[in-house]
Amino acid sequence: MQSVVEDKSPTDSQGQFAGNMMTTQMLVIDLLDFGRKTFPQQEIVSRRLEGDIHRYTYADCWCRTGQLAHALTELGVQAGDCVATLAWNTYRHMELYYAVSGIGAVLHTVNPRLFSEQIEYIINHAEDRYVFVDLGFVDILEAIQDQLPTVRGYVILTDSATMPKTSLANALCYEELLQQQPDTFTWPRFDENSAASLCYTSGTTGHPKGVLYSHRALVLHAQATVSRALLDLQSDTVLLPMVAMYHASAWGAPYAAPLAGSKLVLPGKGMDGASMWELIKSEQVNVGLGVPTIWLTLHNYLTEQEITVTPLERVCVGGAASPIGMVRTYAERYNVYWQPIWGMTETAPLATSLPPTSALLALPKEQRYELQTTAGRAAFGVEMDIFDADDQPVAHDGTSSGELRVRGPWICSQYYKNDDLSSFPNGWLATGDIAVIDPQGYMRVVDRKKDVIKSGGEWISSLEIENIVSLHEAVNECAVVGVKHPKWDERPLLLVVLNKGMQADQATILEYLHGKIAKWWLPDAVEFVAELPKTGTGKVRKNDLRDQYFHYLSTQGKTS
Amino acid sequence: MQSVVEDKSPTDSQGQFAGNMMTTQMLVIDLLDFGRKTFPQQEIVSRRLEGDIHRYTYADCWCRTGQLAHALTELGVQAGDCVATLAWNTYRHMELYYAVSGIGAVLHTVNPRLFSEQIEYIINHAEDRYVFVDLGFVDILEAIQDQLPTVRGYVILTDSATMPKTSLANALCYEELLQQQPDTFTWPRFDENSAASLCYTSGTTGHPKGVLYSHRALVLHAQATVSRALLDLQSDTVLLPMVAMYHASAWGAPYAAPLAGSKLVLPGKGMDGASMWELIKSEQVNVGLGVPTIWLTLHNYLTEQEITVTPLERVCVGGAASPIGMVRTYAERYNVYWQPIWGMTETAPLATSLPPTSALLALPKEQRYELQTTAGRAAFGVEMDIFDADDQPVAHDGTSSGELRVRGPWICSQYYKNDDLSSFPNGWLATGDIAVIDPQGYMRVVDRKKDVIKSGGEWISSLEIENIVSLHEAVNECAVVGVKHPKWDERPLLLVVLNKGMQADQATILEYLHGKIAKWWLPDAVEFVAELPKTGTGKVRKNDLRDQYFHYLSTQGKTS
Ligand SMILES: Nc1ncnc2c1ncn2[C@@H]1O[C@H](COP(=O)(O)OP(=O)(O)OP(=O)(O)O)[C@@H](O)[C@H]1O
Ligand SMILES: Nc1ncnc2c1ncn2[C@@H]1O[C@H](COP(=O)(O)OP(=O)(O)OP(=O)(O)O)[C@@H](O)[C@H]1O
Ligand SMILES: [Mg+2]
Ligand SMILES: [Mg+2]
Repeated sequence: MQSVVEDKSPTDSQGQFAGNMMTTQMLVIDLLDFGRKTFPQQEIVSRRLEGDIHRYTYADCWCRTGQLAHALTELGVQAGDCVATLAWNTYRHMELYYAVSGIGAVLHTVNPRLFSEQIEYIINHAEDRYVFVDLGFVDILEAIQDQLPTVRGYVILTDSATMPKTSLANALCYEELLQQQPDTFTWPRFDENSAASLCYTSGTTGHPKGVLYSHRALVLHAQATVSRALLDLQSDTVLLPMVAMYHASAWGAPYAAPLAGSKLVLPGKGMDGASMWELIKSEQVNVGLGVPTIWLTLHNYLTEQEITVTPLERVCVGGAASPIGMVRTYAERYNVYWQPIWGMTETAPLATSLPPTSALLALPKEQRYELQTTAGRAAFGVEMDIFDADDQPVAHDGTSSGELRVRGPWICSQYYKNDDLSSFPNGWLATGDIAVIDPQGYMRVVDRKKDVIKSGGEWISSLEIENIVSLHEAVNECAVVGVKHPKWDERPLLLVVLNKGMQADQATILEYLHGKIAKWWLPDAVEFVAELPKTGTGKVRKNDLRDQYFHYLSTQGKTS
Repeated sequence: MQSVVEDKSPTDSQGQFAGNMMTTQMLVIDLLDFGRKTFPQQEIVSRRLEGDIHRYTYADCWCRTGQLAHALTELGVQAGDCVATLAWNTYRHMELYYAVSGIGAVLHTVNPRLFSEQIEYIINHAEDRYVFVDLGFVDILEAIQDQLPTVRGYVILTDSATMPKTSLANALCYEELLQQQPDTFTWPRFDENSAASLCYTSGTTGHPKGVLYSHRALVLHAQATVSRALLDLQSDTVLLPMVAMYHASAWGAPYAAPLAGSKLVLPGKGMDGASMWELIKSEQVNVGLGVPTIWLTLHNYLTEQEITVTPLERVCVGGAASPIGMVRTYAERYNVYWQPIWGMTETAPLATSLPPTSALLALPKEQRYELQTTAGRAAFGVEMDIFDADDQPVAHDGTSSGELRVRGPWICSQYYKNDDLSSFPNGWLATGDIAVIDPQGYMRVVDRKKDVIKSGGEWISSLEIENIVSLHEAVNECAVVGVKHPKWDERPLLLVVLNKGMQADQATILEYLHGKIAKWWLPDAVEFVAELPKTGTGKVRKNDLRDQYFHYLSTQGKTS
């Protein structure tokens, strides 16, 4: 009898005792293939850049994705080539997600909100061959095209009728490219560890850094996303990703939706309250994805319109901490479950969440809201822990904080073409977030390493102060930043945007904080502002605020 | 700037353009680790062989699994070694599932219902080092121990108080082995393609054949199992696997339950109606897993007891075709959704199902029942197609039949230590099932290749006839087999078990079939029997029936 057991050490990948299972690879194209086979009539609805609403089915999407694959092949795009997009959330961008990765090329989603030097830098760093661009972003490329030597052509995401005049060399029309192509394509099979897509962080310090996702990572991430531990998507879900497809793949929604058979509602560039609400109402959206600011925008709009009844059941909220005021407002005013999420570009991006299990919903209201301001627990596949400055693990006691580190099959192990491994100690990704983990595994980001306020050698958590201030009825938004202080090094400054028509002064706000935080955490000053500066993804630009207000205390003579 | 792009061909696994993602491997132990971290207080309830009900939590299970890993290590079990079990569904078997695979060894679940020569054959073929055995199966091993040269010892799954007298050489007591061990274990990390467990088919022809599952296959299968496309398990689910852990891993329930956080109810050897119902009622089981015969057993018991109200919401039914009569009975009498499943030992085992989506539940009743007699559609990860005798694909028109072939990451690519690749043509597993697939992708097994009746060069589907006969009010169970006929080669013989206290004769039954199938499909005879012979997994032994009744027509003078 023939024996396959030669070397039984399973750590030895050569002579290991392997199972007798097929080596079928997990590829991104399989997700759409499953969706179009299992839910062919499910819809993808898009607000187009042309202004109208477009709707088609997964079956249609599959055919056009096949056409696009033929077009890419004709353009000479090969396996391993990078293809860039500068585009909002629409069906055409979705087609690019699947066709580019499907032929073995790499989809590079460029964030059009980066500075133009950064856009130039990352297109060159990625060595993009083609750029597919939305109508509104053509001018960005016109200005830098002479500095983009690797780019062979620009494809404008529109049809002949609406092709703009452009100075772009070799400008092509997306719909014309697809028109004559056959709608079936023989998708190649290849190693699941191959690169599928590329996304750069915004690079608040230094050059943006690229995260190169593999097919394996994206498929496993999509399966986790669909599961009850994260977004819990199903064929009844009508999903509105109010997060951009140019940033962290819209949290993977384009990959997860076909797997779940969910209806996908793509908002185009309509990120304002009115546009958002229009789609929610007309498409009966029941699950939304977005940063807290987006849900604040929606809340402000609904308040203005005196609307409290919505088809929404859940909003899934990440990218920043969940303020308890918003958690409560969404629960009590709109009957919507606010589902916190934690993740980052480097984690594909979803890693933790707090799904509305019946055990959670059975808790007393206030206890539940409190939990909803954490980031929840790690999904299957993600391991997380917190470490001190000496790389020692910190206790999971809910109060001791340390830098959050994560690892798992959809977590970045190195930045693209970058030898600096300082963010990847001992096989972990060091996230730059300061967090606590409680004995039940609930994680809470208490600050970012770079935002934490160092006052007299001790740390003050800006997030904790913001969370409390956001509960004050007059407060719409707020931010706490560390500003220069001659004696304490840094002290907290609180910036507040008031609700429309509401009044409050420094004394009221400080009084409100009194007793809720340590006395020495109390901000040295409160400044009322009309708005807070935001990144393209809707996050408060704390670095800008810090720069702007750095000498605030001395200028205002508040350094006593 | 350093370039990692040297060879862009992603099919070249050496120089491929790989993503920058962590190489974290998917291992079986991670499933239980997730369960004990995320749902530490969730319960595992077992009917023990000792007779009582045992309950503990995932947290407890984790600790004892750690102790068992230490014990196995002390026994000298090494990575790659095979460890056999002859055991029913209990928490101790669950501990073995995780500890054996967790240390890198291979769990060989032996089916105690095999003939003793087959048990001897497979233990030797697998080269098992230890056998862990339930109280009731000790005698099986006593009889063959002299023929088992690779086995170093036998561990009896009980405590000192109930240790039986045994002639087994080197007999150890499970609870004694665990007692002094520390309850934390440092689980090794290794290649996910390593073998994790081994299960032999029953070998109705020739020797049983081994299916060697990898960690990767079992983890991906568990994720698919938990998903809405298959079993849709969640933390509210109370799952009763009425399928044996010694056969196809109880359909993966021990792996899937911790991932979903479901309560797991393990029936021990209590496969009868009364024992089953006792657990369903006391533990408030809402999802059951089992072959059709099991649900017939339960139905017969409930009818006897005049019970119609149960906590069950779904029964997931595979291993044999779903008779429409049972689908209807469970819906209308018990308000339970009968969820069909298709799979086999070679597919880990789950591959297709028909989950109760709201779209399905919205269909007219009769149309839905009809769909529930199919095997549903393929889960994400499983590709399936049907082929004719010349390896050509057969149309998916719902009527043309061909041999079903499947492929995917949890599907067998070769039998263990077996060079015969005839069941694995062109990278597929040829299942031996004859099936049709309709344009929507719903698959229906119309027969097994070996059970199909060849009459005058044409095929008669035994399953289709059985499905109709099972609807007759007097019929409890039935089977159709092909028996010898001088002119037509084979003709169908129908065997019927009547409901208690009911009457029917051959003419009534044939009359009932009349007009519902082609005239030449009508069985040549109907034989009324007290019961049908079943395999250890509850399937009708058609080969035995065929042998027994092969000359029936000539003996009875019915060959005109
Ligand atoms: N639930 C959460 N609570 C608190 N902070 C969160 C949460 N989810 C995400 N974040 C913050 O968002 C970060 C990830 O954001 P993302 O990757 O989208 O870009 P960025 O880190 O804001 O920008 P860049 O890295 O490009 O400067 C996390 O590191 C964390 O600081
Ligand atoms: N939904 C279903 N409809 C019809 N038949 C089914 C269904 N599910 C499973 N089966 C049958 O069960 C078979 C798989 O069973 P399993 O692997 O448990 O052992 P077996 O094939 O009965 O025994 P062995 O291969 O050891 O002789 C399938 O090949 C198929 O014939
Ligand atoms: Mg970041
Ligand atoms: Mg079989």
